Amino acid sequence: MHQLQTASLHWQQQVDEALERYIADYAGAELLTQAMRYSLFNGGKRIRPILCYATSQALQVDTKLLDAYAAAIECIHAYSLIHDDLPAMDDDDLRRGKPTCHIAYGEATAILAGDALNTLAFQLISDEDALPAAVRLQLIRCLSRAAGMHGMVAGQMMDMAATGQQITLPQLERLHRHKTGALLLAAVEGPALVSQPTEAIRTGLQEYARCIGLAFQVQDDILDIEGDTATLGKPQGSDLQHNKSTYPALLGLEHAKEYAAKLIDTAITSLAPLGDHAALLRELAYYIVRRNH
Amino acid sequence: MHQLQTASLHWQQQVDEALERYIADYAGAELLTQAMRYSLFNGGKRIRPILCYATSQALQVDTKLLDAYAAAIECIHAYSLIHDDLPAMDDDDLRRGKPTCHIAYGEATAILAGDALNTLAFQLISDEDALPAAVRLQLIRCLSRAAGMHGMVAGQMMDMAATGQQITLPQLERLHRHKTGALLLAAVEGPALVSQPTEAIRTGLQEYARCIGLAFQVQDDILDIEGDTATLGKPQGSDLQHNKSTYPALLGLEHAKEYAAKLIDTAITSLAPLGDHAALLRELAYYIVRRNH
Repeated sequence: MHQLQTASLHWQQQVDEALERYIADYAGAELLTQAMRYSLFNGGKRIRPILCYATSQALQVDTKLLDAYAAAIECIHAYSLIHDDLPAMDDDDLRRGKPTCHIAYGEATAILAGDALNTLAFQLISDEDALPAAVRLQLIRCLSRAAGMHGMVAGQMMDMAATGQQITLPQLERLHRHKTGALLLAAVEGPALVSQPTEAIRTGLQEYARCIGLAFQVQDDILDIEGDTATLGKPQGSDLQHNKSTYPALLGLEHAKEYAAKLIDTAITSLAPLGDHAALLRELAYYIVRRNH
Repeated sequence: MHQLQTASLHWQQQVDEALERYIADYAGAELLTQAMRYSLFNGGKRIRPILCYATSQALQVDTKLLDAYAAAIECIHAYSLIHDDLPAMDDDDLRRGKPTCHIAYGEATAILAGDALNTLAFQLISDEDALPAAVRLQLIRCLSRAAGMHGMVAGQMMDMAATGQQITLPQLERLHRHKTGALLLAAVEGPALVSQPTEAIRTGLQEYARCIGLAFQVQDDILDIEGDTATLGKPQGSDLQHNKSTYPALLGLEHAKEYAAKLIDTAITSLAPLGDHAALLRELAYYIVRRNH
């Protein structure tokens, strides 16, 4: 665990430095870049970039080659949170204990900051001259599919449709595979597109990402019940308040915990083809079910 | 003019067919694709795709090669209108005489439909297997720069900052170069990236696009004063109502008309290196100052 902490700190700094490099003020639209940076640098855990870098390391790819891609995923993640928090969506005033983007900058600027971050993701990857054009293109294909109408945004629509409804476990899984799983899978797929490993390794990594993605969500649902507002940085019990379908609601709290543990076991097993190189990916999987925020 | 009308109808159909092909329903998020299609197929004039195809023709590039790119520009344009119409932005209930997306589908779905269209633009280009990877990548670089924080979105921020303010003519030009000009320039740049013409032709095309982009905006401002609500499909006088800086306000109505005519002259002159091949691009420039909606 100590090794993961050290590496995570390093990688958080690495992606932060990349984002700082990429987002310079633009004359006449300074407020836009301020709002973008406000949301990008709000103390987020950088789980997607860390997952991306940890996979790069496991595949023995120079993590620097993934800087643009890791930053791009974080741009997509940040934009989705800005738009998710809007009054017309979840209407949240706080995120990680700080005013949300639209509270700090107004709704119009928040909408545009989200839009700009969405577009910037693809600009950053297309600008990464250290990677061959064909690889950059594959990364853009992968991320656009994960982020848009076949991935994350579809998941948000499924989530809205499910609110206040009774849905089944398969429906809930499909929702989360899209809403949060797609971007986590993309974080693992990126380094695989750069390194072109054996099919066994690639399939294993995909399964790993799918399992930790679901486990992450199950754990989120559990934390919403067991966590406290100060540690979570958002109001505890907000899922219940928003009448959202959750794993504890469908499975019961204890079975939800068992399910998360089982998913992590499968994730670990899937890393077998990578051998010792996957040490940090294993730690990361364990971290997901141990975290308290 | 007759030739332009025939070609425009053909190209409107061509980009509509491309968009139909690209946007299929996605299980569980059918409402999302409905909202996306509602805004894409709302009777828009398809000026950007027509400009893109007309440039392809002038450069003797198969227009089919630009289908994905033309559709992508239209996705960006459509998303920007959806978000622009939101209550937190311009708060418009009507567009081209029909309820705006958030009126028809609700605000949350409208926000997400815009987000999905933004991302889809880059997915479409990355999927266009008929073009070499390096060209697709250049198209994505070009469009992302034109659409995002260095282009259209920056222009929208400048527009918001200018509302209710006295701004100078150079500031207004800069605003429009970003807000509407960047995407029109991208429509011309795309075919040039595919065809790689001489530097003289490329520079000429860029100047042409810049001039018609500004002329388009000057004409828009004039129509907001002289047009009628039924033909415009939006309330006449809405610029005045929103207290927006316009060319007629800064130059006076007659000087604004002279300015538009002068811009079109420069646009026509810039096409000289293309010779007879640019016949439709010339017609298009004249159309921009003759249109009544």
